[in-house]
Amino acid sequence: MQLINASIITIGDELLIGQTIDTNSAFISQELNKIGIWVHHRLAVGDDWDEIWNALDEESRNSEIIILTGGLGPTADDITKPLLCKYFGGQLVLNEKVLEHIKYLFEKVYLRSGPLLESNKKQAEVPDTCTVIPNLRGTAPGMHFQKGGKSFFSLPGVPAEMKGLMTEEVLPWLKNHFELPAIVHKTFFTAGQGESFIADKIKDWEASLSPNIRLAYLPAYGMVKLRLTAKGENATDLENQMIPYVEKLKDLIKDYLVAEEDVPMEVVIGRILKSINKTLATAESCTGGYIAHLITSVSGSSQYYKGSIVSYANEVKETVLGVKRETLKTSGAVSEETVLQMISGVIVKLNVDYAIATSGIMGPDGGSKEKPVGTVWVAVGNKKKTVTKQFHFRFDRERNIQQTSMYALNMLRKFILADLQPNNL
Amino acid sequence: MQLINASIITIGDELLIGQTIDTNSAFISQELNKIGIWVHHRLAVGDDWDEIWNALDEESRNSEIIILTGGLGPTADDITKPLLCKYFGGQLVLNEKVLEHIKYLFEKVYLRSGPLLESNKKQAEVPDTCTVIPNLRGTAPGMHFQKGGKSFFSLPGVPAEMKGLMTEEVLPWLKNHFELPAIVHKTFFTAGQGESFIADKIKDWEASLSPNIRLAYLPAYGMVKLRLTAKGENATDLENQMIPYVEKLKDLIKDYLVAEEDVPMEVVIGRILKSINKTLATAESCTGGYIAHLITSVSGSSQYYKGSIVSYANEVKETVLGVKRETLKTSGAVSEETVLQMISGVIVKLNVDYAIATSGIMGPDGGSKEKPVGTVWVAVGNKKKTVTKQFHFRFDRERNIQQTSMYALNMLRKFILADLQPNNL
Repeated sequence: MQLINASIITIGDELLIGQTIDTNSAFISQELNKIGIWVHHRLAVGDDWDEIWNALDEESRNSEIIILTGGLGPTADDITKPLLCKYFGGQLVLNEKVLEHIKYLFEKVYLRSGPLLESNKKQAEVPDTCTVIPNLRGTAPGMHFQKGGKSFFSLPGVPAEMKGLMTEEVLPWLKNHFELPAIVHKTFFTAGQGESFIADKIKDWEASLSPNIRLAYLPAYGMVKLRLTAKGENATDLENQMIPYVEKLKDLIKDYLVAEEDVPMEVVIGRILKSINKTLATAESCTGGYIAHLITSVSGSSQYYKGSIVSYANEVKETVLGVKRETLKTSGAVSEETVLQMISGVIVKLNVDYAIATSGIMGPDGGSKEKPVGTVWVAVGNKKKTVTKQFHFRFDRERNIQQTSMYALNMLRKFILADLQPNNL
Repeated sequence: MQLINASIITIGDELLIGQTIDTNSAFISQELNKIGIWVHHRLAVGDDWDEIWNALDEESRNSEIIILTGGLGPTADDITKPLLCKYFGGQLVLNEKVLEHIKYLFEKVYLRSGPLLESNKKQAEVPDTCTVIPNLRGTAPGMHFQKGGKSFFSLPGVPAEMKGLMTEEVLPWLKNHFELPAIVHKTFFTAGQGESFIADKIKDWEASLSPNIRLAYLPAYGMVKLRLTAKGENATDLENQMIPYVEKLKDLIKDYLVAEEDVPMEVVIGRILKSINKTLATAESCTGGYIAHLITSVSGSSQYYKGSIVSYANEVKETVLGVKRETLKTSGAVSEETVLQMISGVIVKLNVDYAIATSGIMGPDGGSKEKPVGTVWVAVGNKKKTVTKQFHFRFDRERNIQQTSMYALNMLRKFILADLQPNNL
């Protein structure tokens, strides 16, 4: 079986002056890796004719597949399309289908009145040597070229558009076009322990893995995802080969295992709540609505999520959630007493089965000797019972908000699961 | 004056399977760009001898400065140091100073008992052909090589360590070593119009720019950032040279100009509210707390932001915000009447000066013929007046939430500024 090499070329001065962090390459690499294509080069070049031209020469020398992103916007500094036209021969022609789509977007979606701008019309021009890849999400179409037996894909740099084209068009084409090795991925989502702790716990198991099975750590705030990748000739054989390894791993990490797939915590919570037909609300101070955002980022969350009281000001904790003024005076907003009262307040106010409450000092300002930045109280509960926990984070404000939210959701998950055990309450 | 080119080579398989998002390159590019060094190439390669070797050959052909990050950790798969030793000649020797520092870190900082691991001792070995760059923040030292008149810097991949070495060692060395041009950046943040619209509006102005001034577009959801970069001998001269261009540009985009710097919308809103000493609250249905999250991601936002009623369920719109059941029945939750009542409700309930309300269908489910996915109503107002607007988005759920939030914040910004004009209300 041939080993397929790929290169990713990201185009744009904004990458070279560091204005943009390139997340596209990571996504493309992951997706190609999943189907058994090895990205051996990632290159970023500016909006510069020679740089792009040389990159195409250079990368196509060692790769079967070259994926370009960026440089397709309507603005003047984009030279990619004329260059591709020259590089692959042919000439720019107006593609009626693309033009129709652009008109549709401007009239029906962007609701722009008046005629199309020249710069937008130009986006409908594509080299007649390419196969157009329709971009449902934007005005710049994707383009597919073939040269010297190599496949070139030019995709817009807007992440949502690039992802759409990769998922719906490029990956399916690659799967059909190449004889790729069988790849089986299994992801195990753990929460509550750091990467090094997990690594130490499973190091003997990891050493025992057969050579065609690789383990990758995918750490994120408050969670660690373990991905097993098996490569071989036949998917079923790989599945069977993995069974004993998977069983052993699940046993080793059972206390931290959230899901046996790569799925966000908020989706796991949603499934649990739907399955038991219960409702949830949140009372957020320091997380400032981020937990609500995570939960409502899941389509269909209105089935189990009623809302959040983002009580950023103490006044709101008092007037809306009914936290006692006395408590705020004596124990302060960042205290166990306060989050306990926030829980009972929001459960009654929003009439739900379960609730989460958060209060803390996210920094960089607002810390004190007794309550330094990173001090956080979280409570989860129902009408009968509440569990509280204090955390001491460091890091920056953004990380504190994300970690608090992740830990709070995991606390809720454990609370509900325990709540479902008959003898547990 | 010589134009100095630089290349960045990031090393590590984790980059090529998309496990890690490369933020180091963006930081290094930014810092080099600020001192007038142009990064014309960014390359990511795996932990592979030939790939790294070829990258060094290739990049040193066109760059004066080559910066490598990663591949220096204590783990087995790191081949970078032996390779550098071979590439630049010489041999690996134990550096006593580095060893001392590693011992110090383990004993005093990591508080590890017992002898050093071999893998950690090995980190004190460096090629005798390099100048060691002490790494105060970690065990892997930086290394500086010279070959063929080119400068090579090998830095650890841990962001905090890399940043420390860049800031304290590499950048000062480069400033002393090269005669660098002066660089002046100016960023203009616009909202409410797309990239192509702005581009068309300023195309004559853009054509008039002198050759040493470059314009870059940095589009994002609901906003466009324009960055002017001037390169020359003297910063003051550049500042003066830019004045007429800047004045003209500001006039051309005055209706969409949010800020004359690269700053998030939520920071702009915060500054305005602080300056007039007014308070804000939000009543969010379809944005599900995302607006609250944006606002509270700004440190100090508690000075002007009281909180949000995330009324995801209609029941909460009724019981907490006082939206009339009749309205929800007849006009529905996604309607002008509902967001109007959400505004008046939250202004009273949270006792604030200004408020934002959102209600819409974010998709992919929940759309109807009359109200398809992407139908959104936004209201902004104060006790005396409310402005509403209907939007028709498409795309995916995540983008709808982000765009709604950005447009809503911009509506609020415009409302407050109009509100401050004495004759305007």
